[in-house]
Amino acid sequence: MDQEKNVNQSDDVHDIENEGLLDGKEIERYRSEVSDKNLSNTKPLLVKRTNTTSQIAIVGANVCPIESLDYEIIENELFKQDWRSRKKIQIFQYVLLKWAFALLIGLGTGLVGFFNNIAVENIAGFKLLLTSNLMSEDKYFKAFAAYAGCNVGLAAAAAALCAFIAPAAAGSGIPEVKAYLNGVDAYSILAPSTLFVKIFGSVLGVSAGFVVGKEGPMVHTGACIANLLGQGGSRKYHLTWKWLRYFKNDRDRRDMITCGAAAGVAAAFRAPVGGVLFALEEAASWWRSALLWRTFFTTAVVAIVLRAFIQYCTTGKCGLFGEGGLIMYDVSSANAAYSAPDILAVIFLGIIGGILGSIYNYFVDKVLRTYSIINERGAVLKILLVITISLLTSCCSFGLPWIAKCIPCPTELSVSCPTVGKSGNYKSFQCPSGLFALLGAASFLGGTMRMTVSLCIILLELTNDLLLLPLVMLVLLISKTVADNFNKGVYDQILKIKGLPYLEAHAEPYMRHLVARDVVSGPLVTFSGVEQVGNILHALRTTGHNGFPVIDEPPFSEAPELCGVVLRSHLLVLLKGKNFSMDRVVTGDDILQRFAAFDFAKAGSGKGIKLEDLDIKVEEMEMYIDLHPIINASPYTVVETMSLAKAAILFRQLGLRHMCVVPKSQGRPPIVGILTRHDFMPEHILGLYPHINPDK
Amino acid sequence: MDQEKNVNQSDDVHDIENEGLLDGKEIERYRSEVSDKNLSNTKPLLVKRTNTTSQIAIVGANVCPIESLDYEIIENELFKQDWRSRKKIQIFQYVLLKWAFALLIGLGTGLVGFFNNIAVENIAGFKLLLTSNLMSEDKYFKAFAAYAGCNVGLAAAAAALCAFIAPAAAGSGIPEVKAYLNGVDAYSILAPSTLFVKIFGSVLGVSAGFVVGKEGPMVHTGACIANLLGQGGSRKYHLTWKWLRYFKNDRDRRDMITCGAAAGVAAAFRAPVGGVLFALEEAASWWRSALLWRTFFTTAVVAIVLRAFIQYCTTGKCGLFGEGGLIMYDVSSANAAYSAPDILAVIFLGIIGGILGSIYNYFVDKVLRTYSIINERGAVLKILLVITISLLTSCCSFGLPWIAKCIPCPTELSVSCPTVGKSGNYKSFQCPSGLFALLGAASFLGGTMRMTVSLCIILLELTNDLLLLPLVMLVLLISKTVADNFNKGVYDQILKIKGLPYLEAHAEPYMRHLVARDVVSGPLVTFSGVEQVGNILHALRTTGHNGFPVIDEPPFSEAPELCGVVLRSHLLVLLKGKNFSMDRVVTGDDILQRFAAFDFAKAGSGKGIKLEDLDIKVEEMEMYIDLHPIINASPYTVVETMSLAKAAILFRQLGLRHMCVVPKSQGRPPIVGILTRHDFMPEHILGLYPHINPDK
Repeated sequence: MDQEKNVNQSDDVHDIENEGLLDGKEIERYRSEVSDKNLSNTKPLLVKRTNTTSQIAIVGANVCPIESLDYEIIENELFKQDWRSRKKIQIFQYVLLKWAFALLIGLGTGLVGFFNNIAVENIAGFKLLLTSNLMSEDKYFKAFAAYAGCNVGLAAAAAALCAFIAPAAAGSGIPEVKAYLNGVDAYSILAPSTLFVKIFGSVLGVSAGFVVGKEGPMVHTGACIANLLGQGGSRKYHLTWKWLRYFKNDRDRRDMITCGAAAGVAAAFRAPVGGVLFALEEAASWWRSALLWRTFFTTAVVAIVLRAFIQYCTTGKCGLFGEGGLIMYDVSSANAAYSAPDILAVIFLGIIGGILGSIYNYFVDKVLRTYSIINERGAVLKILLVITISLLTSCCSFGLPWIAKCIPCPTELSVSCPTVGKSGNYKSFQCPSGLFALLGAASFLGGTMRMTVSLCIILLELTNDLLLLPLVMLVLLISKTVADNFNKGVYDQILKIKGLPYLEAHAEPYMRHLVARDVVSGPLVTFSGVEQVGNILHALRTTGHNGFPVIDEPPFSEAPELCGVVLRSHLLVLLKGKNFSMDRVVTGDDILQRFAAFDFAKAGSGKGIKLEDLDIKVEEMEMYIDLHPIINASPYTVVETMSLAKAAILFRQLGLRHMCVVPKSQGRPPIVGILTRHDFMPEHILGLYPHINPDK
Repeated sequence: MDQEKNVNQSDDVHDIENEGLLDGKEIERYRSEVSDKNLSNTKPLLVKRTNTTSQIAIVGANVCPIESLDYEIIENELFKQDWRSRKKIQIFQYVLLKWAFALLIGLGTGLVGFFNNIAVENIAGFKLLLTSNLMSEDKYFKAFAAYAGCNVGLAAAAAALCAFIAPAAAGSGIPEVKAYLNGVDAYSILAPSTLFVKIFGSVLGVSAGFVVGKEGPMVHTGACIANLLGQGGSRKYHLTWKWLRYFKNDRDRRDMITCGAAAGVAAAFRAPVGGVLFALEEAASWWRSALLWRTFFTTAVVAIVLRAFIQYCTTGKCGLFGEGGLIMYDVSSANAAYSAPDILAVIFLGIIGGILGSIYNYFVDKVLRTYSIINERGAVLKILLVITISLLTSCCSFGLPWIAKCIPCPTELSVSCPTVGKSGNYKSFQCPSGLFALLGAASFLGGTMRMTVSLCIILLELTNDLLLLPLVMLVLLISKTVADNFNKGVYDQILKIKGLPYLEAHAEPYMRHLVARDVVSGPLVTFSGVEQVGNILHALRTTGHNGFPVIDEPPFSEAPELCGVVLRSHLLVLLKGKNFSMDRVVTGDDILQRFAAFDFAKAGSGKGIKLEDLDIKVEEMEMYIDLHPIINASPYTVVETMSLAKAAILFRQLGLRHMCVVPKSQGRPPIVGILTRHDFMPEHILGLYPHINPDK
């Protein structure tokens, strides 16, 4: 190894460790310093960041390091050998298990959805009965104290759970799931602790009277359940099973989490088809025909589970379980007969809904930015904030019916405030039902979420009235169109605030003026086909890159040629195996014998071998290791002169983590650089080329 | 130009002209000979073909030459210059026009759907009234003669329309639309004459009492309307408009035709959401989030148009228009209350439906193969065949109620035989309604079409009963799973019979054992960056290739390098412009001045400059032309050692027409070959490697 290694500044999303020579503990210390620095800073992620810090983002309420997921089909000798040796029985195992997991996701999400409702209805029901009993005895002050006390207690419990156990569970959860399905990985997004806090936190929060949408927590819960199942067993807890090994890759996990997201919506609204469409329209970034079929199965299971439990509960065995079933808001509209003037009214309603929705999104943006400044000050302040808000909402919800007893119910309320009006309280709200309340709700939601088809189906499944369909479609189309002129959908906005590096499906116009070569920054770290252990270790320590190009040189090839790309995780497994040789010779066959493909399978999130786990002796640093068996020999490549727009679309369509940029002419080194998710982020590109006007 | 040019056997789907030196007229003669040869042969496309003939397929009832569509973003200097010069107003024009077209497609398809129903109900109503009047006078023989006479007359008219005007309109049409959206182009698939015959032919055919599904003709009609709008004007008829120029590319046309297919289903079943899902699940091969939104708009328009017309017709101004509205089969089920034993019954029904569906598909396959042998014998035989079948069905439908007056209606009938039982005839069928008829129909259709989600939604929109949803989902899932074990869906089967080169989304297992280099056949035809006119003309005449790699050599570059790919259609435009130079020099700037991007825009199907249109003089053959402005400088490339499976998935995901295979090592010519749709067809690969067992 005579080639000098240099450090590249921009290889992958995850490169917080790329400064100087650090050993494992130093890295840990450095990492915690980085995140402390971010926490202590007033606006770490809310101000426009330079590219070098985009390897962290807010997940839930805390700052986390983030990585990209590996969706590429990795073709190395070891995996090829594994494919060739697979028999029909193993393919059958794989298919059967995939369906079994879809079934389990459906069952699990259905159960959680049912549990949440039972718990909320019992806790909130107890609270409201207590309050109304005191009120009927004219003890108004005591009633308010009981009401507010319950609310504050419940809210504080929820906030404490969230702050101390899993900050990743804070917030809606949909932006995080959306980012995960776009290829952004952070261990905490879908961790078991997140699942636990999400379930109990949302039960407590909703019981405390917070206006919390059901769909966010349920989508996040469904995704967490799917992720838990998709871990491919655990060696630590001896939960390994031969069948599970096929699930240790990001592609299968992505499919399962898509099913989980669909199941979440299905459980929240008892809308199985709406769930499928939500997954397609809003959650998933990559879609295959097979997925339609699988998500459909999962949501059908959810629907059947929920139906079974509701039938059980109608016998009165579920405590304070309302008659309305799991549909918390019964939006049964009057039979719709509408004419031309109605359509004009609907158009007007759509425009109003679009404007209101975009204003709502604007305020959500502002409020979240303010919240996150407070959140960064520490857990105690978070809880205090929650208690304050809880007291305020208690006053409002207790006081409001007194101030204006008979105002017409705002049209939005029937859907966006699902917890209001349950279990017999506030029966004084006499809303003029029928047609326009639903359409107003649809219009507002269309303006906020900007999902048309799935919202339409969800509303359809809630109302069970197909005659309304054309009107709902019309109002949703108009409100989305109007609102799109002002700002983005609420989930996209939150993604941006949180700094999650989301890849858009389209390229920005200014990307047409640049070529792929323009955004490749810094010199490249490459390996030889047979590389010295010390060099590899040095590169792993000094950079945070997750992919390294391998270049074969004479005597292994006639001229320097791009052999492929190796992943950091595979290098770590190989190094741990210590299959070193004293001389620079090809020992690939030996490696193929000693390792199985399973050893290199992607570990569950947060697991896998770390750099600190390696124990390489000084004399081993001088030895060589043959990388050929683990090189992905056919990485996706683009020529350096391809426009950045075309490269970005390719990168996104294929769901890549690394894309090699190759030179146009021969006689130069066979690779120009590597593009990652990070290099396509507008902040990065506009940082490199500040003269570009992104609005032009 | 000192490099020898060779002829490649396998460049593109369209290469029927690749034998020897032919001029324009000779090519025409040769082409007609080829298709005659195929017509006169007993089984031209039904026997397993070798790859060299897969450039033709059966479209409708006739054999047609087929090409691939260009979905790639072509980046040449001319187009880049055009992009850069586009202003906001032009982007606004483009967006506005796209929505306007979506509106027009919806309006057009809705109108046609309404017209079809009015026409069928009036013609068939007249026929049935005549028959039943005669029957009520006990003139049974006269009644039969009138009934059969009407049927035969109508059927013969339909057959004649189809045989003499547009054979492409024969059959369901869904397989052809599916193939088009997969990237297979034949002028006749969506031609205006096809549209005309499809509308009137299906009206006559349905009136003649044939059991014709509505969805096929309506999907084909919708797609034809979309294609007509997407032509980007016509210079011949002076229908050019500056705004339309942006639609002269295959990507925008694909989007519009997807909208058309969705509109077709929406109009056939008055199921707007079902239409969107049909387009997603069954019709489209490539899907983007934006398309969901656009197809949804189109089907909403269809729904509103149909509703308006139905309201108009309820006033009695539409002749013999039934009360049932456009839903020809009123499958209103009894209110469903189901328990555990019912679910067992449903599972049983699903299995039965799956088995029956796959048996049906088996017979469809056999019948179609027999039909197409007869069809190839000429138009007169086609018409005779139709008349015979019409007589037979007349006898059956007239005689059947006499033989068994009170047999329970077969469960399938309620959906699969939409024309039976209309306008007051056969009222003696007293089917036990309720729940299981619908579920049986769903089960059978699931077994036949293998679409789950869209069928579910369509049935839902027909029945307007959401409580049935879980059961319908269950039965569809089971019947699809069962039927998938036996054979493919009916549309996929027809695609295969017709020889349409459909690209599957997944790779076949044996493709993992091959690499990209293995299927590249024959030496390659390449051009220099500045090429002699004679060489280009020779290559265009002697091959049918649609893409040619261009290699720059010294003095234009330091070493030979792959400059990109030029398309045949662009070469023809450039040659027609006669921008030749005496010396081998770069004249690109001059060309950029003389041509606009619009000149190279893809012409509507069947149009565009042909080789015969060129008029190159002998002295011009020695001159040079600079190809650089029209070279797609960043074609998608894969390394020769990439597995064929990975290459196939890449090819399909990106919707490519040409994929360049580049050598792994430097010092060799910069391109190994070009892969096209054709090279990924199982017939081609298994022809090259007969020892591979595709079932392993």
